[in-house]
Amino acid sequence: MAHKIILDTDPGIDDAMAILFAEAHPAIDLLAITTVFGNATIDNGTRNALWLKQKYGMKADVVRGAVAPLRREPVGPTTVVHGPGGLGDVEAGEVTITADPRPAWQYIVEAVTAAPGEITLVTIGPLTNLALALQEAPEITTLVKQVVVMGGAFGVNGHRGNVTPYAEANIHDDPDAADRVFTADWPVVIIGLDVTQQSFFSSAYLDALRDDAGEPGRFLWEVSRFYLRFYSERIGLDGCHVHDPSAIAYVIDPTLFTLREGPVRVINEGPAIGHTLQKFDGRSHPHDGWADYRAQQVGVAVRDEALLALYRETLVAWGKDC
Amino acid sequence: MAHKIILDTDPGIDDAMAILFAEAHPAIDLLAITTVFGNATIDNGTRNALWLKQKYGMKADVVRGAVAPLRREPVGPTTVVHGPGGLGDVEAGEVTITADPRPAWQYIVEAVTAAPGEITLVTIGPLTNLALALQEAPEITTLVKQVVVMGGAFGVNGHRGNVTPYAEANIHDDPDAADRVFTADWPVVIIGLDVTQQSFFSSAYLDALRDDAGEPGRFLWEVSRFYLRFYSERIGLDGCHVHDPSAIAYVIDPTLFTLREGPVRVINEGPAIGHTLQKFDGRSHPHDGWADYRAQQVGVAVRDEALLALYRETLVAWGKDC
Repeated sequence: MAHKIILDTDPGIDDAMAILFAEAHPAIDLLAITTVFGNATIDNGTRNALWLKQKYGMKADVVRGAVAPLRREPVGPTTVVHGPGGLGDVEAGEVTITADPRPAWQYIVEAVTAAPGEITLVTIGPLTNLALALQEAPEITTLVKQVVVMGGAFGVNGHRGNVTPYAEANIHDDPDAADRVFTADWPVVIIGLDVTQQSFFSSAYLDALRDDAGEPGRFLWEVSRFYLRFYSERIGLDGCHVHDPSAIAYVIDPTLFTLREGPVRVINEGPAIGHTLQKFDGRSHPHDGWADYRAQQVGVAVRDEALLALYRETLVAWGKDC
Repeated sequence: MAHKIILDTDPGIDDAMAILFAEAHPAIDLLAITTVFGNATIDNGTRNALWLKQKYGMKADVVRGAVAPLRREPVGPTTVVHGPGGLGDVEAGEVTITADPRPAWQYIVEAVTAAPGEITLVTIGPLTNLALALQEAPEITTLVKQVVVMGGAFGVNGHRGNVTPYAEANIHDDPDAADRVFTADWPVVIIGLDVTQQSFFSSAYLDALRDDAGEPGRFLWEVSRFYLRFYSERIGLDGCHVHDPSAIAYVIDPTLFTLREGPVRVINEGPAIGHTLQKFDGRSHPHDGWADYRAQQVGVAVRDEALLALYRETLVAWGKDC
C-alpha cells in the first residue's frame, strides 16, 4: 500500500526536487500539493506547483495556502537562493489548469477527515497551513497518520541554522506556526539541517541525473543551476544539501534516519527567532516549558549514501517512462 | 600585583564558597561584595554577605544591590537549593556592621571610575546590578578591566540548563540584564554550566576540607550540608558541582579554562527564557542578531583536577591563619 501524502510546499528549487521525487516513487500516493509563502511568494509558488502538475500530468490536487505568517513580520521570498520566481533560472510556462478553490488549511481538514488515519502530512515549507488547520479543526490531531516536517536545526553534527546563526528558513518564516505544530498532540517527525546538511547532491551527481533520468533529470539539472551558483558563491560548495527531498525519503524509508525523541519548542522572538530546541533527556527542572508536550522525533543521523542512491534510482526509473 | 575585584553575588551556598575563596587567595584583592536577589532575597543575601565580612574580618565593602530583575516576572529565591535564608542549614548570626549606603550599581560606577582599567567585575548572581550600572554610566565599558560571569549554558559537553531544560539560574533570573552585559562593548568571560558542571566537589573532598582547612573548612562543610542533600535527593550525586568558585578560579588562573570566542545573545521570552547562544563561527547569514556585537569568551573546557587542587590549597593555607 502506497503512503497517501499531502505535500505542503513553497516551491522552491529543492521543493521541485521533492515534488518530482514524491510523484516518481511508487510507494508514495501524492494526493495533493498545498502551497505556502516562503521560498517564493504565494502567487509564484502556486503557479510553480500548477505548472509542475501540468508538465508531468500529475493527478495531485494543487491547493493555494497562506500568503503570510501567523504573527511575525514576513521575511519575504528567498530570491537570492531560489531565484526571482522560485525556480531559479527557469520560468514556469503558461498554466492552463487551476488550483482547488479551497484554502489549503480547509483542504487539509476535509481530506484527513474523509480518510481518518490514512494521510501523512509532509511539510517542506513554513508551517502556517498546518497551524491554521489545527486552529480551525483541532480534532485533526487524531485523524492524521503522521506529520513529517523538513525544518529546524538542533545543533546536532554542528548544524545550527542557515538564514540566521540559529534558525533554519522554514521555521524562521513562521516560528509561531512551527511551535503549534510541534506541540500539538500528533506524531511529528522533524527532518532538520542536522540531517539534511549531512547529505549532498554534488554537481557531478546532478550531471549524472541529467544524463540518466530522462526529461525529469534534465529539468532538475536546469532548475538547480541557480541554486548551485548560490552554493558556490555564498557557501563555497560545488553542489547542494539535500533539504526537501529528505522529508520524502523519510516517508519512503524511515530506516535511512536515526531519530531522537522528546518535546520540541520554537523561539518566536528576538535574535534567535526560529530556533528549535528539543528536550531529549528525562531530567526534571523547577521550570519546564517542554514537560507538558508530546515527545516528537528529531532526525539526528542519516545514511546519506543510501539516500542519494534512493533518489537517483527513483528518478532514473521514472525518467524512462516520463 | 593582586587582581582588584568587585564580587557581585546572591549568597547562596556556592556564593559563600566563592567569597571565602576570593578572600583567601593572595592574588585577589577583594574590594567589595555587591549583592543582588537570586539564590536568596536581597535582604537575606545582603545579611549573609555582611555576616561573612564580620565573621572573617574582611576589609571588602558590602553593598546592597537590586531587589528584582529589570523586566521579567521575578522567579523568587531558590530555597530548595540554598535553604530558607540562603546558607542552607546555617543561619547568619547577629550582624553589627552595615552596608555601604549607595546602591550597588552606583558603587560599581564610582569604583571603576576612580580606578580606570584596574578593576575586574566578577558576577556569580543575576546580572541586574551590572546592567543598571551600564544604563546609568555607559562609559564604564571603557573603565572596567574585564567582566567574569558565572552563568549560562551553551550546550557544550551536553550541559544545557539547570533551572529549565535550556537555562542556567543566574541568566534565567534576569535574561534582559544578561543580554545587555554580554552585548556591551567590554571584555566578558562567561564561565557557564559547560565547565562548572565538569568540576565536582565530592562529599569526600568537602570532608577533607573540613578536616584540613581550619574554621573556614568547617564552616564550608557545615554550610554545604543542605546543598549536598539537594544534590543527593534531586540529582542523585554525592557532592556538588563547582559553580561560583569557578569564576574566582578563572581570575586567579585563566589557564584552567579553554575559551571559545564569539558574540553571545540571551533569549528573554518564552519557554527558553534565559537560554544563552554564542555565534562562534564566521559564517554570514541573511539575518544575524549576533553580527553587530563584540566577540566574548565562553568557557568550553576546564582542567578540573587542577581547579580542585587550587581551591583546596587556597583554603587550607588560609585556614591555618584564620
